[in-house]
Amino acid sequence: MNDLGPYSNYRLTVRLELANKPGMFANVAAVLAMEGANLGAVDIVSATSASMIRDVTFDVRDEAHGEHVLMRLGALSDVKVLSASDRIFLLHLGGKIQVQSKVPINTRNVLSMVYTPGVGRVSQAIAKDRSKAYAFTTKSNSVAVVTDGSAVLGLGNLGPEAALPVMEGKAMLFRELAGIDAWPICLDTQEVDAVVRTVQAIAPGFGAINLEDISAPRCFEIERRLKESLAIPLMHDDQHGTAVVILAALTNALAVVGKAIEDVWVVVNGLGAAGTACCRMLLAAGVSHLVGCDKPGIILQGDGERLRACRQDLLSCLTPLQPAGTLQDALRGADVFIGLSVGNLLKAEDLDLMASDRIVFAMANPDPEVSPELAASHCRIFATGRSDFPNQINNALAFPGIFRGALDVQAVAINEPMKLAAAKALAESIPRTTLTEDYIIPSVFDKEVVPKVAKAVSAAAHETGVARRRNKIGDQFSST
Amino acid sequence: MNDLGPYSNYRLTVRLELANKPGMFANVAAVLAMEGANLGAVDIVSATSASMIRDVTFDVRDEAHGEHVLMRLGALSDVKVLSASDRIFLLHLGGKIQVQSKVPINTRNVLSMVYTPGVGRVSQAIAKDRSKAYAFTTKSNSVAVVTDGSAVLGLGNLGPEAALPVMEGKAMLFRELAGIDAWPICLDTQEVDAVVRTVQAIAPGFGAINLEDISAPRCFEIERRLKESLAIPLMHDDQHGTAVVILAALTNALAVVGKAIEDVWVVVNGLGAAGTACCRMLLAAGVSHLVGCDKPGIILQGDGERLRACRQDLLSCLTPLQPAGTLQDALRGADVFIGLSVGNLLKAEDLDLMASDRIVFAMANPDPEVSPELAASHCRIFATGRSDFPNQINNALAFPGIFRGALDVQAVAINEPMKLAAAKALAESIPRTTLTEDYIIPSVFDKEVVPKVAKAVSAAAHETGVARRRNKIGDQFSST
Repeated sequence: MNDLGPYSNYRLTVRLELANKPGMFANVAAVLAMEGANLGAVDIVSATSASMIRDVTFDVRDEAHGEHVLMRLGALSDVKVLSASDRIFLLHLGGKIQVQSKVPINTRNVLSMVYTPGVGRVSQAIAKDRSKAYAFTTKSNSVAVVTDGSAVLGLGNLGPEAALPVMEGKAMLFRELAGIDAWPICLDTQEVDAVVRTVQAIAPGFGAINLEDISAPRCFEIERRLKESLAIPLMHDDQHGTAVVILAALTNALAVVGKAIEDVWVVVNGLGAAGTACCRMLLAAGVSHLVGCDKPGIILQGDGERLRACRQDLLSCLTPLQPAGTLQDALRGADVFIGLSVGNLLKAEDLDLMASDRIVFAMANPDPEVSPELAASHCRIFATGRSDFPNQINNALAFPGIFRGALDVQAVAINEPMKLAAAKALAESIPRTTLTEDYIIPSVFDKEVVPKVAKAVSAAAHETGVARRRNKIGDQFSST
Repeated sequence: MNDLGPYSNYRLTVRLELANKPGMFANVAAVLAMEGANLGAVDIVSATSASMIRDVTFDVRDEAHGEHVLMRLGALSDVKVLSASDRIFLLHLGGKIQVQSKVPINTRNVLSMVYTPGVGRVSQAIAKDRSKAYAFTTKSNSVAVVTDGSAVLGLGNLGPEAALPVMEGKAMLFRELAGIDAWPICLDTQEVDAVVRTVQAIAPGFGAINLEDISAPRCFEIERRLKESLAIPLMHDDQHGTAVVILAALTNALAVVGKAIEDVWVVVNGLGAAGTACCRMLLAAGVSHLVGCDKPGIILQGDGERLRACRQDLLSCLTPLQPAGTLQDALRGADVFIGLSVGNLLKAEDLDLMASDRIVFAMANPDPEVSPELAASHCRIFATGRSDFPNQINNALAFPGIFRGALDVQAVAINEPMKLAAAKALAESIPRTTLTEDYIIPSVFDKEVVPKVAKAVSAAAHETGVARRRNKIGDQFSST
């Protein structure tokens, strides 16, 4: 049985030498099928009358499975395993991003303009008026992707070097989705003061700051202090990017089931960085009945000691009508469940406690709070963070457009109205008439999403007085 | 009269609408010639039977000259100036560098490998063994170009934003000459402690650090403390890049005049960042008779109070045979003058005080210590930092190869033997038989220089035990 999804984290490419006679490859394919390895691309490297060398790519479940499959292939007669490589690691060799010159330095003339002595005139012009850095340097289009490696993906405190491939991946998304020049900054410190000081120190060269994979509750203080001290857009994406996409998805899900955001009871489970930001954004968007849960169960208004100081502003917003109890108690009669916690803490049957036409966003990674295979039949709308089920809630839908919009107008901040505008534009990027239970949020490959979100964010920046300019330099998207 | 060099810092492109009849352009060319503006490219933008629109590019002496020429062009009958733009500023619009993905994210499959969830496996592998960051991230090939904006080019303390175009130019040279991914880091602090702490904090994401345009004497302490605390290559280029190129040029100049480095008397004027490093490097290379001068004149062994603490190690090296006196006194009988100070402090006749077959490197920017037009006939070999005279001593000849060589072997430092090896390889990049008085140093466009310097630096790193690996990842230059 083959229980792999449409793609796997464990993809191997194996170079095989096969005797050049009929049926040899069929033997290889049979072993792969028998062992549950998904066959992918097959290339011929070279062929002689005696033998044929092929590169065969296939997905396995994990490293042990991969080694077992390789052993089985090597045991075939007339088959020799020449080499085996792991596609993901191969893709990462030497890193995933690079710096390019926009102007080739092919003559002395160009050199004298882009470097000394000519560049001196540009430096002097900026020294006289610092805002000219936006016109004549990369500052207008650059984002520092800053982490201290304290909460890398869902994997924990792996440190700055281990965070680097994730930050490079993020820089790729900034480039590919929004035409932004992002560079990873991985910090050799996890002290709040030191992180704040370092980001303040490097800020002059960047147009904006994306904080990433910084653990809660440290991330709240770091973001707050940096927002207070810097006059460039700054956002902790794990909090706000996620919250924006959830709000957009919820907006569309409510439209599908025909409920109003003011009326629904929403349960948010997991009050970490993303959960806290999600609660704040839902309240700002009009949710009136919010039940927050964390490991001990329902958080009550009087529960100050259960929430760290940084999140106490949430307490007064939590509905006073909800009695104490477990997560299951919270679900009773609720319209919406949003999980930002850990995998498999609910049974599919638990969802039956909820109201009819229930909406369930189970966002824990890699395993959702409730099994996606089983949950779908217990709710009307179901979404996860995974790409192998419908309705993937992916923060790559939000941050590229938010930063694009903020940079385009040289905003001095990313404020709540800009994030709400992003969520609204993201929701509206799907025409109301095409919304269905399985299509409440667009694909990350939908090219129209980023320009729409960016435009809405720029407009909100103007309306709230944080935009420094109306017309943007180096128009990334032609206005329509 | 046209007194412009082969290129100018003030290059204008003017869009002109001319009546479409014979002789119109000749009128334009005549005005430019009369006003001493160098005519460059001429393009036709559009033409009708009545008029022709042309883009005309020309060099002027300065802004006032440019405005005067524009006024004269506008005064021509049947000529209308539609717009005028400054080439250098145009080239800088939106910045000069960008970040690119090495792998296009065009499918969900690729996305799942370069970002979450696939990237998590790479992060976990690096968390287990941090040295794997060199294999699977950009760290192996990246340099942070760090400045605090305290000594931007020769222009002074212009601040971090104004330094940014210079750092971008440097990043372009790293890319174009050495295939290195360099990113500018411009600091919002000029406190030594804060600069040191910030560079330490951002170090994990970079393969090496290039300090740039940091004022003396602060640069000495900053570099020393960072070298002591970081295990990646680090170099303050204003000091050591310049010193390496000067040593290479001096080596070849001495070969041309037939003098030995141990025998010559060398006068170094200007004991700032570059002058101090130059003295240290010359002593390391075998110079035995060194006379250091600064504003008050000759610095003597007993002159502790004239040199700041950071440079007192030089005192014992200065020749004890030289009497006190002025710079002119120092020149008497000297074989080599190296100026790293300010423009026009010597008359050409002052050089006649020196020994025969004298060598003069007048490196002050933009005006050398002695007028290049007049000095050439008063010495055997003359070099400057300028590209419009022979023998340009340009630190772009050194830093790309030094960092390339250090990165290639994952060196933990850039030490003295590596810099000496760079100077030797740079000198030897010109075959001995082709050396002449006007050709002691190669062109920055000589494609063979960087690979040769890099190879020598890598070898010196191995010999001195600071290389972490022999074979380099992502071979930038095929070995021959």
